[in-house]
Amino acid sequence: MIYDVAIIGKGPAGLSALLNAKIRNKSVIIFGKEPEGLTKTKSIKNYLGIEDIKGKDLYDSFYEQVKDYDFEESQAKINQVYAMGDSFSIMLSDETIIEAKTCILAIGKHIKKDIKNEDVFFAKGISYCATCDAGFYKGKKVVIVGYNEESIEDANYTSEIAGETIFLNMYKKDVKLNDSIKIIEGVKPLEFKGHDNAESLLLSNGEEIFADGFFVIKDSYVADRLVPSLEVSETAVIVDHNMQTNINGLYACGDITDYPFQVMKAVGQGQTAALNAVRYLDTMVE
Amino acid sequence: MIYDVAIIGKGPAGLSALLNAKIRNKSVIIFGKEPEGLTKTKSIKNYLGIEDIKGKDLYDSFYEQVKDYDFEESQAKINQVYAMGDSFSIMLSDETIIEAKTCILAIGKHIKKDIKNEDVFFAKGISYCATCDAGFYKGKKVVIVGYNEESIEDANYTSEIAGETIFLNMYKKDVKLNDSIKIIEGVKPLEFKGHDNAESLLLSNGEEIFADGFFVIKDSYVADRLVPSLEVSETAVIVDHNMQTNINGLYACGDITDYPFQVMKAVGQGQTAALNAVRYLDTMVE
Repeated sequence: MIYDVAIIGKGPAGLSALLNAKIRNKSVIIFGKEPEGLTKTKSIKNYLGIEDIKGKDLYDSFYEQVKDYDFEESQAKINQVYAMGDSFSIMLSDETIIEAKTCILAIGKHIKKDIKNEDVFFAKGISYCATCDAGFYKGKKVVIVGYNEESIEDANYTSEIAGETIFLNMYKKDVKLNDSIKIIEGVKPLEFKGHDNAESLLLSNGEEIFADGFFVIKDSYVADRLVPSLEVSETAVIVDHNMQTNINGLYACGDITDYPFQVMKAVGQGQTAALNAVRYLDTMVE
Repeated sequence: MIYDVAIIGKGPAGLSALLNAKIRNKSVIIFGKEPEGLTKTKSIKNYLGIEDIKGKDLYDSFYEQVKDYDFEESQAKINQVYAMGDSFSIMLSDETIIEAKTCILAIGKHIKKDIKNEDVFFAKGISYCATCDAGFYKGKKVVIVGYNEESIEDANYTSEIAGETIFLNMYKKDVKLNDSIKIIEGVKPLEFKGHDNAESLLLSNGEEIFADGFFVIKDSYVADRLVPSLEVSETAVIVDHNMQTNINGLYACGDITDYPFQVMKAVGQGQTAALNAVRYLDTMVE
């Protein structure tokens, strides 16, 4: 099936888009997890209509309000979103493809560069998807910069294919990895170096690790690498007041559209994005 | 005194801007009345965090949340807002001037033209402010197109100055006017006619009333006549995703920025406008 609306991100902006798309009877799939930042916030005083509330309670009330509508939920990692003209193909890390007529990005803060030259060498020795690309490094040396639980699974999987696997641990203490994996801890990745392709990663202790391939595995997406040809600034996806991006049928809302990073703004933008997506759907020729 | 922020409009967008500006400790004056459209809405289901609520109850909860902050409220009619470079001069209909460093327009739907040629002849025989301009029509013939309670006071006041006063009643039945005023009811104003200045008003019954001056007295503002040089489209004030207009320090939010005409969008935009106004204030040289 082809969904009317695919929402990427399940924070306040994503849930607001979901609610509004469902009220307008559109078929929806939503990707993502409960947002950690919000649910750890102790007190929110500027959500109009609700005097003072814990972030977790506010988020739960949002979810409570949408949960009885008929929609699909997925926690799958998205590898890339391709704009196909009158639809979007969303490729998941297991290479499943989900199709939707419109797409709403609500993936949280956009940070253009995490590690220096990460953007320069993206797809040139740097990958965000071990499931997709580990096969290229059979018997070779690979570095995984791991920021989340998924990076541990990815490291274990990659180590069964690669000749040598190094895990730069940016996640938490005491990760459980296959014995063959070398773990580096207590330092930060500073800069990728290379010529045509990434060849090494400089660390904050001055060490430089040379390898054939590098995987950066993190929860956050860099918006214009997630969606090729998406227009972004240094800090945000560029949208107009309708939350329309430079790509037809693609909307963005919430923290990804820049300051202010606030719940009420996010839900307002989620509504605007969804209702404009509905308008766009209504104008499509069947 | 000069206020940090002047908010024009007391609907959801205006109250949201107020809450956010006060949380940031800015001095605020807010103009306007409880919005009729919202408070008559029987059920709102798409305000995230509040399952299903009457418009009146939602608005009351908004007001309850802001009312204990220290701010000024005014129901005065605003004649014009002048952008003075690093501040705004807000001229009220009694010619009092209120000054503010930033201004947030939250005045509801923007309709460029109400009566045909109203924009063409504005300030050329057509005025929105009897208190300001009635003096020009001493002994002359004046037509008042009246849409609200204020138009009745204005008609009575004008009739003491003008030679002949005609009241085109667009408000409600049985308005109480001075005996000297001629009342026309049951027809609509269609078009102003004239050459350099408005000379007549064509009515829906085919009648054409010639006069020296015309007053259109209504609650709604036409944004670019309220604020000279403000950029607008046919249906909205033009804003970017920060709710910034083409005038430095001037923001717009809510229905005035166009579709979707929804409460959640309005409060989100009110927050965005206020927090960007606060940022702008913080960058001002003292």
